[in-house]
Amino acid sequence: MSRPRVVIVGAGFGGLSAARALRQADADVLVVDRHNYHLFQPLLYQVASGLLDPSEIAHPIRSILRGHRNTDVRMAEVEAIELERRVVRTDAGELAYDYLVVAAGAMTNHFGHQDVAAHSIGLKSLDDALALRAMVLAQFERAAECSDEREQHRMLTFVIAGAGPTGVELAGALVELFSHLLPKDFPRLDFSPVRVIVVEAANRVLSAFHPALSARAATVLRRRGVELMLGRTVDHADERGVTLDDGLAIEAATVIWTAGVRASTLGEQLSHVGRGGRVAVGPTLQLAGHEEVQVIGDMAEVRDRGTALPMLAPVAIQQGQQAARNIVAMLAGGRAAAFGYRDKGTMATVGRNVAVVQLGRIRVAGFVGWLMWLFVHLTYIITFRSKAVVLINWGWNYLLEDRPVRLITGASREQPTREPTEAAG
Amino acid sequence: MSRPRVVIVGAGFGGLSAARALRQADADVLVVDRHNYHLFQPLLYQVASGLLDPSEIAHPIRSILRGHRNTDVRMAEVEAIELERRVVRTDAGELAYDYLVVAAGAMTNHFGHQDVAAHSIGLKSLDDALALRAMVLAQFERAAECSDEREQHRMLTFVIAGAGPTGVELAGALVELFSHLLPKDFPRLDFSPVRVIVVEAANRVLSAFHPALSARAATVLRRRGVELMLGRTVDHADERGVTLDDGLAIEAATVIWTAGVRASTLGEQLSHVGRGGRVAVGPTLQLAGHEEVQVIGDMAEVRDRGTALPMLAPVAIQQGQQAARNIVAMLAGGRAAAFGYRDKGTMATVGRNVAVVQLGRIRVAGFVGWLMWLFVHLTYIITFRSKAVVLINWGWNYLLEDRPVRLITGASREQPTREPTEAAG
Repeated sequence: MSRPRVVIVGAGFGGLSAARALRQADADVLVVDRHNYHLFQPLLYQVASGLLDPSEIAHPIRSILRGHRNTDVRMAEVEAIELERRVVRTDAGELAYDYLVVAAGAMTNHFGHQDVAAHSIGLKSLDDALALRAMVLAQFERAAECSDEREQHRMLTFVIAGAGPTGVELAGALVELFSHLLPKDFPRLDFSPVRVIVVEAANRVLSAFHPALSARAATVLRRRGVELMLGRTVDHADERGVTLDDGLAIEAATVIWTAGVRASTLGEQLSHVGRGGRVAVGPTLQLAGHEEVQVIGDMAEVRDRGTALPMLAPVAIQQGQQAARNIVAMLAGGRAAAFGYRDKGTMATVGRNVAVVQLGRIRVAGFVGWLMWLFVHLTYIITFRSKAVVLINWGWNYLLEDRPVRLITGASREQPTREPTEAAG
Repeated sequence: MSRPRVVIVGAGFGGLSAARALRQADADVLVVDRHNYHLFQPLLYQVASGLLDPSEIAHPIRSILRGHRNTDVRMAEVEAIELERRVVRTDAGELAYDYLVVAAGAMTNHFGHQDVAAHSIGLKSLDDALALRAMVLAQFERAAECSDEREQHRMLTFVIAGAGPTGVELAGALVELFSHLLPKDFPRLDFSPVRVIVVEAANRVLSAFHPALSARAATVLRRRGVELMLGRTVDHADERGVTLDDGLAIEAATVIWTAGVRASTLGEQLSHVGRGGRVAVGPTLQLAGHEEVQVIGDMAEVRDRGTALPMLAPVAIQQGQQAARNIVAMLAGGRAAAFGYRDKGTMATVGRNVAVVQLGRIRVAGFVGWLMWLFVHLTYIITFRSKAVVLINWGWNYLLEDRPVRLITGASREQPTREPTEAAG
């Protein structure tokens, strides 16, 4: 076939949005991802905390793109991008392209701390979330049988490094699980030693939000029993727990690392990368010297009035659409246009009934924010079936204070293995 | 505490039924299982074929028994039963008992064929089902990229050893997946080489059913594209596929072994075991020489008018109730009574719209049987939430011919690891 070939690396929010916008394009589109599913990452913490099943937040890519007659899907691990040859090398062969969209997302960043990488778990993939769920629940099973008090307290201590949206939402979900639900499962276990500790380098939680919203979130978290250790970082981790930069040692069997993400290492093959491994691209999202290559989403450092756009789903989605428009323009002999971000706002839940929402100068906190959060997330969930099932699970959780998916699967009774985590692509 | 202590090994249908029936008993009840969930095994094949999520068929044991004030749950692996000391040894310590109910279920039986064990996957545990789902879907992802025709045909050949209910239900679900759904996901893949082959030693499928029902099931399976190889057995398996006892070699990347189950090996510690590793107990379910020990469910060989009762959920449930009644009687200074089985019938689906049902002399096949199958299974699913979600997924499947849970998780792109499979306890 002589039609131009577009390869999209990654089926996250950015890659999928580009593929959708290319549906009518006169080109053959190939989407490559290491998984066979698109993952709705913002709800990963609900899988980790036993509220949702994987299939509610993960959907087969082939199913999503089924109606696209010009699109094919390949499950493969991308190993290298050869810009001069215009080829993507994967573990399942080489893929030639005329136009390339690189949207391989972000992965957990341990900032070189091998000890932290070895003794903590991230929350970027479905396997992370399932392993974390099993790990958290197994601590209570073990603690219920444990007669050594110090060891029992260690099992019941959960350290979350990072108070961004992922850390805060997970902390809120875990305290809800530990304070309302698990005491009914373990009526003979003393829950007073249970600790959920959030360690954050900044001096406030949710530092991307307005300080008033950070303060509100911190108040709610503290009232619900989360210990916030602000202005501090995890300096060291081992099999006993963590040590903070001020020397405080915390014995904890479960350490969850949400304190850093970095762009996929594929970026390093494209150009010199900046902070967080992101590839600096111009306003048209094109790689300098390679107009046929666009980088979008978490991998791209795109500046808007001087500051880099954040790693957020709406940014990736809009960039995917722009990348598709650019390709269509280039196919017609035209030129790529500059990307302009329309701020869709950001939001985070702080547990039951409370969320903070920021949209430009509009700020909402509390129950109304929580309803907005529910509505927006339900809207973005892909299939009608999943919307229905998520609604049932959320209602079940709200009315019965129950989290239905409290299953220890996989490695089961052993400490779940911690594989290196990386995002799509 | 001086109350008598009842230990129940296994939280399958039998163990859970015993625990429920002991709710009002004047004794401390402890349920031990290696998992933290009860598994609704009859629907495992729907998890394996991408229709249901784990949480619809697995429920936390602690949650099920939450209202029982005399009952505790321990997640532990039982290593040995010491009859003289009246102690159950687990990997989490020793558990002393006054009364013991052994309900550790059954596991896959390879009849000593190490090669089959190494090159096939069973369908007895949740981990089996998830691994099988990933394995089946991954074959199509690989076949779509494969240019070697012989290798591609091998990837698209699925051998199921055993035509009991598990083998037949799985075969029906797989041909539905392969003939209606996956062709939409893989529009460029030629599906004509896809084969689903069922190998069965008996000369008919579902040999526990009336021959008329077997014949009906065989007709439906064949019409839908399943190849039945009756009166034959799998003699050898290796990385290329299987060889049958008549010398026929079948190249197949996926071999599913449902051709044999045997009782948990714990039985061997209790007495001399008979066929299938089952412990022969008297009509009162008590172990000879140890009135305080009862063996129930798949592990027990209980004779009813000369023939051993089959390994079925209704048998286990009724025996669990009887075991509980026996303990209550013994606690009151009385004696255990004989078990009498009330036949609840057996049923199996043969895929969409067709099931066979046998209840004494009543036999039903076809659409009415299928509705009965749906109703009975929906009734036995434990929580209201799961009933609602299962109903949504079944409806989705029926109306859209879609199986929503087509996710390759866990080992993902690698051949999923095959762990030894064993049942509860």
